[in-house]
Amino acid sequence: MKIALAQLNYHIGNFEANTAKILKSIADAKKDQADLIVFAELAIGGYPAKDLLRSTVFLDSCEQAIDTIAEACTDIACIIGAPIRNTSQKGKSLFNAALFIENGAVTHIAKKGLLPDYDVFDEYRYFEPAIDFSCLTFKGIKIALTICEDLWNMENINSYVINPIDMLAEENPSLIINIAASPFSYTHFEERKKILIKQAQTYKLPLLYVNQVGAHTDIIFDGRSLVFNEQGEQLLELAAFQEDLQYYEVGDSVAATPVDFSEIALIHQALVLGLRDYFSKSGFKKAVLGLSGGLDSAIVAALACEALGAENVFAVLMPSIYSSDHSIKDALDLVKNTGCKHQIIPIKDVANAFEHILAPTFQGLAADTTEENIQARTRGTLLMAISNKMGYILLNTSNKSEAAVGYGTLYGDMAGAISVIGDVYKTQAFALARYINREREIIPVNTIVKPPSAELRPDQKDSDSLPEYEVLDALLHGFIENEKSGSELVALGYNPALVQRIARLVNNAEFKRFQCPPILRVSPKAFGAGRTIPLVAKYPF
Amino acid sequence: MKIALAQLNYHIGNFEANTAKILKSIADAKKDQADLIVFAELAIGGYPAKDLLRSTVFLDSCEQAIDTIAEACTDIACIIGAPIRNTSQKGKSLFNAALFIENGAVTHIAKKGLLPDYDVFDEYRYFEPAIDFSCLTFKGIKIALTICEDLWNMENINSYVINPIDMLAEENPSLIINIAASPFSYTHFEERKKILIKQAQTYKLPLLYVNQVGAHTDIIFDGRSLVFNEQGEQLLELAAFQEDLQYYEVGDSVAATPVDFSEIALIHQALVLGLRDYFSKSGFKKAVLGLSGGLDSAIVAALACEALGAENVFAVLMPSIYSSDHSIKDALDLVKNTGCKHQIIPIKDVANAFEHILAPTFQGLAADTTEENIQARTRGTLLMAISNKMGYILLNTSNKSEAAVGYGTLYGDMAGAISVIGDVYKTQAFALARYINREREIIPVNTIVKPPSAELRPDQKDSDSLPEYEVLDALLHGFIENEKSGSELVALGYNPALVQRIARLVNNAEFKRFQCPPILRVSPKAFGAGRTIPLVAKYPF
Repeated sequence: MKIALAQLNYHIGNFEANTAKILKSIADAKKDQADLIVFAELAIGGYPAKDLLRSTVFLDSCEQAIDTIAEACTDIACIIGAPIRNTSQKGKSLFNAALFIENGAVTHIAKKGLLPDYDVFDEYRYFEPAIDFSCLTFKGIKIALTICEDLWNMENINSYVINPIDMLAEENPSLIINIAASPFSYTHFEERKKILIKQAQTYKLPLLYVNQVGAHTDIIFDGRSLVFNEQGEQLLELAAFQEDLQYYEVGDSVAATPVDFSEIALIHQALVLGLRDYFSKSGFKKAVLGLSGGLDSAIVAALACEALGAENVFAVLMPSIYSSDHSIKDALDLVKNTGCKHQIIPIKDVANAFEHILAPTFQGLAADTTEENIQARTRGTLLMAISNKMGYILLNTSNKSEAAVGYGTLYGDMAGAISVIGDVYKTQAFALARYINREREIIPVNTIVKPPSAELRPDQKDSDSLPEYEVLDALLHGFIENEKSGSELVALGYNPALVQRIARLVNNAEFKRFQCPPILRVSPKAFGAGRTIPLVAKYPF
Repeated sequence: MKIALAQLNYHIGNFEANTAKILKSIADAKKDQADLIVFAELAIGGYPAKDLLRSTVFLDSCEQAIDTIAEACTDIACIIGAPIRNTSQKGKSLFNAALFIENGAVTHIAKKGLLPDYDVFDEYRYFEPAIDFSCLTFKGIKIALTICEDLWNMENINSYVINPIDMLAEENPSLIINIAASPFSYTHFEERKKILIKQAQTYKLPLLYVNQVGAHTDIIFDGRSLVFNEQGEQLLELAAFQEDLQYYEVGDSVAATPVDFSEIALIHQALVLGLRDYFSKSGFKKAVLGLSGGLDSAIVAALACEALGAENVFAVLMPSIYSSDHSIKDALDLVKNTGCKHQIIPIKDVANAFEHILAPTFQGLAADTTEENIQARTRGTLLMAISNKMGYILLNTSNKSEAAVGYGTLYGDMAGAISVIGDVYKTQAFALARYINREREIIPVNTIVKPPSAELRPDQKDSDSLPEYEVLDALLHGFIENEKSGSELVALGYNPALVQRIARLVNNAEFKRFQCPPILRVSPKAFGAGRTIPLVAKYPF
């Protein structure tokens, strides 16, 4: 039996485009004489569709799409993920299902039993968990058809009360198929692969895994669909971060060499795809961003040029009286290296006008960060004016270290439609810049080697108010990724005064992060939907 | 048996303050010779604690608080809600529990079986649902102890696979106790009461219900704890929107007159409590807001003066060249009527400076909403400067109708730490203004009767670009509260072109609302955590 793995990039709610893409893959697989084609979890409708799953019109469109696709399934069978209505009077109104379609009709439905509700997942909001599982038989081969998390009930990973694959294994299948919508993080592919290998070995069965690819605002799918034999040896790996269609012949067992990417290479590909899909799926072409001469905006500009084309990127230099000469030169070098458009708009006159009209209100009060924030908000207003007038989308350039400690101005440099590197720590940003420069200098070397500064007051350096980024990022990783409280980090050997100070900064910035743009997610724990902290609370230390 | 209902206002994560408050109620109830005191769901730790429930330190603090409270439970028993650890190897790590404490020790634990995961709820993220239920016996009385949603599996309300109260009823209890953290909306009290009455009647048992009171950023608890007899007659109703401690003597059946509030009176109380708790629980005293002379900012100013005291409210008038004389006069009348502080800062010079430095970039392009947004962002920057310099908290003054159609400027009038009336439609805002004026004129009558205008260009009126608010709000209610798609609203008789236009406005504003401040929730469907719509998607119509 020849099975096609169809790894596609869906657009949530765009039934016309998604269905056309699915039909094209079916036609291709038929031409290549495949017996079965397998699409990802929730390929119908897209994922995460969130509360669109509560719309009757959306669900009707899902059913129409299934009908259209079923009609095309002659001389080939198909497995595809879709939300389906729960026709019982009990439980949530939907199931997260894998449909098996043969001869133009759905002949088997596998429903997801393990619904992830951690991190960015909230499937229990929409779906009733299945409790019954059974295999399907196609052309004499018994298949255990499972959906993503249904394979993830494993020691030290997740613990659920039931274990669907155990229940399916009792029927003695000869193949496991898992369809997934498993988002990227720079640690997740290895974790995912380890689990799939373990399951193939545990049940001594070949395992075919089809993932989504493509980005949906913050969530990025990396694709990299996989096939293993019953020893857990890798037979196939589909493309990373792009669509792909490949075939597996049941019984075939020629091992393939696994593809290996560095962490930074993965982050780079994820961010480029995240940016590209954000624009293409929302119907925009052009981006605007502020270019300071510093590292973060240089990286975002370089990524945007790669994702959208340099001709679609407009970099705005907005020097103040505190901007150093090298900043403007470094920014202009970046412009030259990338070929993007640019303009220089000095902000002095507006900053002065603000301070002038505020003078009566602020009489007798000393200058402080207020004046720094005015500069940042002046820049934010200029960038939004260009966005409004020209229809360009504003890219946010904050990094994760800044976002964590609140080292940024709400409505100023925290503005933007999408945060490109808000899940990339500053130490990772340095590595990313060097990676971007791997073939030629795109990000000026001086931008990488000079000491980071916000340049909001004379001779300011990040290190004036923050510890060195190596120290800071390690601590932040403890707070964010490892979800440790301050006292636990002190117990791990961190300086108590430093932990106290950073914990306070992180906590005090919750209200700012609440209002920040969506962040392209590349880490196992990004700011945003995957990390919900109450704003008005006394935080544990 | 004399039972105390302790309806308290908790502060999430503030174990010291919460425990002191709980101990005080226990002492009071002991003095009044109660046999049992009942606190609300998740009184320990506070609700919604969200991802703080993932902190070991937070959970340890919960256990310490339980120990301290248990020690005080001599000569009185206690029922209190707390998150407790799941000691089994299977399932989520916590249960949402009701502890029964007697003679200094926890002697019975009821675990929640029905975990709400709709609207603002995400309990499945943290808790394992219980599947076993049993009654407890205290002083010869068998009690069916349940937690909030466990009573809510009812036809036309929610449908769950199991029904805990049915299972408990098989043990023939003689009293139902339900502890809850049931958030306010202006329709919810009546719905809740109907369900409780129905359950008392169905099981022919007296029912005692203890709710939380108090606000946690967006979520507001209204209290109004209740007792019914076995006929479903109301015996007791605790205070609305404030702490209360009252007693029920088992067997007592003197009916009480139910308290009746108008919808607007409820919204008014909820918003005042929401504002007051936002400030007191985050440790701030003073508020700043922009006062335009229009309805929305006048209402927010009046509510803030009531919640915080007029001496803690700073109103800033920021007229532009498009501001009418009556706007300034109306704003000053409001200042006089409330007694709050104020200052006038004309924005002309800054708006001019912006247009001047943008002139080269905008050469040859016509004036449009960009220039209007610059005015709004100039005001936002001024208000944030005052907030930064003086430590005042910026109140957002957008209403729900504006927020729905995107009639507002991101980082401009959409700025603020908390949105006070972002869940109040414009038509409700008129009613709220009249309610605020019920005893004397606080909001100037001219502010209420003049046609609404953003005054961002000459002679602008809201009705230039939006339908009349009665029409708009009815349509928005269909989209938001009733979750209808456009075609369903057309089928209900709305004008197709209008529906299409408003649907597009609502959809296009999703990205703005993603970045708006938390909104005090008063409706059954507020913007925010209770309504999650993907930003990059094709929306169903």
